[in-house]
Amino acid sequence: MEFTAKQIAAFLNGSIEGDEDIKVNKVSKIEEASRGSLAFLANPVYKHYIYKTNASIVLVNKDFKTEQPIQTTLIRVDNAYNALAQLLEIYKKSLPDKTGISQVAHVSKSAKIGQKVYIGEFAYIGENVEIGDGVKINPQAYIDDNVKIGDNTIIYPGAKIFEHSVIGKNCTLHSGAVIGSDGFGFAMQTDSNFKKIAQIGNVIIEDNVEIGSNTTVDRATMGSTIIKKGVKLDNLIQIGHNVVIDENTVMAAQVGIAGSTKIGKNCMFGGQVGISGHLNIGDNVKMAAKSGVGSHIKSKDVIMGSPAIDASNYKKSYIHFRNLEKFVKRIDELENEIKRLKAK
Amino acid sequence: MEFTAKQIAAFLNGSIEGDEDIKVNKVSKIEEASRGSLAFLANPVYKHYIYKTNASIVLVNKDFKTEQPIQTTLIRVDNAYNALAQLLEIYKKSLPDKTGISQVAHVSKSAKIGQKVYIGEFAYIGENVEIGDGVKINPQAYIDDNVKIGDNTIIYPGAKIFEHSVIGKNCTLHSGAVIGSDGFGFAMQTDSNFKKIAQIGNVIIEDNVEIGSNTTVDRATMGSTIIKKGVKLDNLIQIGHNVVIDENTVMAAQVGIAGSTKIGKNCMFGGQVGISGHLNIGDNVKMAAKSGVGSHIKSKDVIMGSPAIDASNYKKSYIHFRNLEKFVKRIDELENEIKRLKAK
Amino acid sequence: MEFTAKQIAAFLNGSIEGDEDIKVNKVSKIEEASRGSLAFLANPVYKHYIYKTNASIVLVNKDFKTEQPIQTTLIRVDNAYNALAQLLEIYKKSLPDKTGISQVAHVSKSAKIGQKVYIGEFAYIGENVEIGDGVKINPQAYIDDNVKIGDNTIIYPGAKIFEHSVIGKNCTLHSGAVIGSDGFGFAMQTDSNFKKIAQIGNVIIEDNVEIGSNTTVDRATMGSTIIKKGVKLDNLIQIGHNVVIDENTVMAAQVGIAGSTKIGKNCMFGGQVGISGHLNIGDNVKMAAKSGVGSHIKSKDVIMGSPAIDASNYKKSYIHFRNLEKFVKRIDELENEIKRLKAK
Repeated sequence: MEFTAKQIAAFLNGSIEGDEDIKVNKVSKIEEASRGSLAFLANPVYKHYIYKTNASIVLVNKDFKTEQPIQTTLIRVDNAYNALAQLLEIYKKSLPDKTGISQVAHVSKSAKIGQKVYIGEFAYIGENVEIGDGVKINPQAYIDDNVKIGDNTIIYPGAKIFEHSVIGKNCTLHSGAVIGSDGFGFAMQTDSNFKKIAQIGNVIIEDNVEIGSNTTVDRATMGSTIIKKGVKLDNLIQIGHNVVIDENTVMAAQVGIAGSTKIGKNCMFGGQVGISGHLNIGDNVKMAAKSGVGSHIKSKDVIMGSPAIDASNYKKSYIHFRNLEKFVKRIDELENEIKRLKAK
Repeated sequence: MEFTAKQIAAFLNGSIEGDEDIKVNKVSKIEEASRGSLAFLANPVYKHYIYKTNASIVLVNKDFKTEQPIQTTLIRVDNAYNALAQLLEIYKKSLPDKTGISQVAHVSKSAKIGQKVYIGEFAYIGENVEIGDGVKINPQAYIDDNVKIGDNTIIYPGAKIFEHSVIGKNCTLHSGAVIGSDGFGFAMQTDSNFKKIAQIGNVIIEDNVEIGSNTTVDRATMGSTIIKKGVKLDNLIQIGHNVVIDENTVMAAQVGIAGSTKIGKNCMFGGQVGISGHLNIGDNVKMAAKSGVGSHIKSKDVIMGSPAIDASNYKKSYIHFRNLEKFVKRIDELENEIKRLKAK
Repeated sequence: MEFTAKQIAAFLNGSIEGDEDIKVNKVSKIEEASRGSLAFLANPVYKHYIYKTNASIVLVNKDFKTEQPIQTTLIRVDNAYNALAQLLEIYKKSLPDKTGISQVAHVSKSAKIGQKVYIGEFAYIGENVEIGDGVKINPQAYIDDNVKIGDNTIIYPGAKIFEHSVIGKNCTLHSGAVIGSDGFGFAMQTDSNFKKIAQIGNVIIEDNVEIGSNTTVDRATMGSTIIKKGVKLDNLIQIGHNVVIDENTVMAAQVGIAGSTKIGKNCMFGGQVGISGHLNIGDNVKMAAKSGVGSHIKSKDVIMGSPAIDASNYKKSYIHFRNLEKFVKRIDELENEIKRLKAK
């Protein structure tokens, strides 16, 4: 498929600077683009590439200021990254779509399957499962008894969803994700053995949630582990039993949240953050990568370090940490000076 | 099923305060409980909920002191958490149980299968595998050649156990766990390529061990990686080749233990702890979440930080770290004072 | 199979000290070896074991100096660890080899399959897949449409490779590894929802790469995520979209690399290292375990801490960190001294 700058600008409601008839047939990164590519510039870090890119068309934010002559055709839009997202989504949707139930899937007779569903090879669908319309259960996925899955949700190969979990609409669960396995609940016995606490709760995932590859979300001991609308979890994240994550919170890879912690809306956590159990984290909290959190956190706090403190405090203290050798020498020197002064 | 306070108290050997005929038909968290619920109070953090809970019955420790009037019926027991564990276990055991070998499992002819075994759909059982009585191999699990699995062990969907591994009785291996894959052993060559060291050892897991979802336990290069009786590993943990973990040690999610490290009994490690290779960690060691350990650790040590040091030392130093800006100003000021004194 | 010291020394081009006719039939660790074992000594930490080992033969480096009388027969070689690797490899290669395509694998008609390929039970091979000679696709592995896999590569059970990924020759992808799943790309909307950015790129893995169990490598948003020749990734590692890792770089378990970061050749990263996105890391960089990296790093740097700084700087500062309590007391005391001096 080939499109002109004019067609793309019309679709994105953008304005053209350059050749409105130039054609593109692929999407590339600005630094790797060749003739015939559409590229985009959203992150100013990559600004210098626009003056030497081979891309035929570059999407830019409407307030982008050129500082040198530019060869490529620009399309100015409100938000270049969102505009790109729109284009890529259309491309994805144009790809062929799988439907139908494989002869070599296991689908229990008691399962209720919606319209236009795909169930791939070697997938397992347990008793009393309810699967909405347009759902894709890819090969080798495991859907345990009594699970409900909302319309248009995609379950990638090898993802596993355990009994009584409830998954919303338009969710994406990536390969190897494990939803609703037992939480880590043990009671220590007097002989220092641990006795397992049976985990009888479930997991509820609301609409538009994305769960990354090999991420694990434990079921509640009692009640529900809840992941609310629009939450995005990256790969290899651990969500403990009875955790609640409120709407539109985003976590980068390898974050770990211990049991019974409640997390607010619109939070953003960097990679490898760890949060202890039984804590309350407010709304709009930002945590730098590798933060370690052992206490409640107020809404809008921006934190860093382990134990995590106010991020600007951490950064300042860390600069001094790097110079501790010098400070110790200054203390040594001060002590010598005092001695000399006292000796006078 | 419905039970009266009297029935439950008799079963748990507890004493009733309130209505001995009140009935419950479900188990809930104290803060979410409704009429007809049994709840429990073990963690004093949740103490205030007991005065407003809607639970019909609450299990409490026998020494619990009420500070306000209470509506709900109490059952006092030696240990409320253990009592709850007993009740939940009975509930779990009352659920229907799967047995039999699926027509669409692959079971090698040379495999020896015990009594009352369940082998689910698309599970793979290799040559010369020995499976004890009452074992559950859930769908899509992979049991490689020459593996032995003890009685009543549960292997969840998609867990994988590699050649010559030996798994004890009453173990639980959760979804996506990988037991006995190759350790990370490479010899650097003079051209800075790495040459793989073939890993010819195995993994031995003793009785009553629990291995979390997507946790990986590498086989030994030579000899065995050993996880002893009663060890509990949470999700997404990495256990390197030739590691030995002694009895009843417990590790929270995302811990990583590098090759050939030996860990003592009854240790408790918080989430995201990392331990370097070839170290000895004593018995009863406690490590705070995110500890990074690069040296041997004595029995009973309680450590924190990276590199990990005595936890109370770390906490004190960290308070000063937060105030380094102030200390630097005080040093500046002292230097000025000295100058002024010398100028006199 | 049994071999004499003479046969082994001839094979390894080594020299014998002791009984050239002594026979071994197994390989053991030096501290666990019994009569009939071949052991090796490469790491000087284990040096003391050589004086009491029961091994019949021990491989040592040719410059190894004995400090006490030795019972065992020594074979001196250029590099004992490499020599062991050679022997283990020969042992591994002597084991029986699986080939053939299982009747219960799903292989698309459009897939091109090379010579001497193994495709195990419940494996899925999508449309237009190209599989080279000698490739082993173990049971329950998932190879998506349009994937290419080079000669002699091994895909372990349950590993998953997504559309358009290109895998080189002689690679090893361990169980549960997920190659080419969607990167974590979302554009924040004005209502603080996140809109998914369709990920239309792929993953390219060059020759002789090893990817650990449950490790995840995301596809590029556009273009390719690239893992070059000879790279070794341990278990549970996260590689973000559009990351490039250059030749022979080695990463220990649980490392996380965020999107679009470029990593040089011959780097060595300890476990649980985290690196932010859009960074350039030079060649031959060493990062201590748990390093957190938020800025570009020059070639040959050795770093530690979070944020990571020069490792020797970090270690020195950390010693002072442990003693901050003392320094604060010294500052207090200095202030008192100044007061006293001024009062004179």
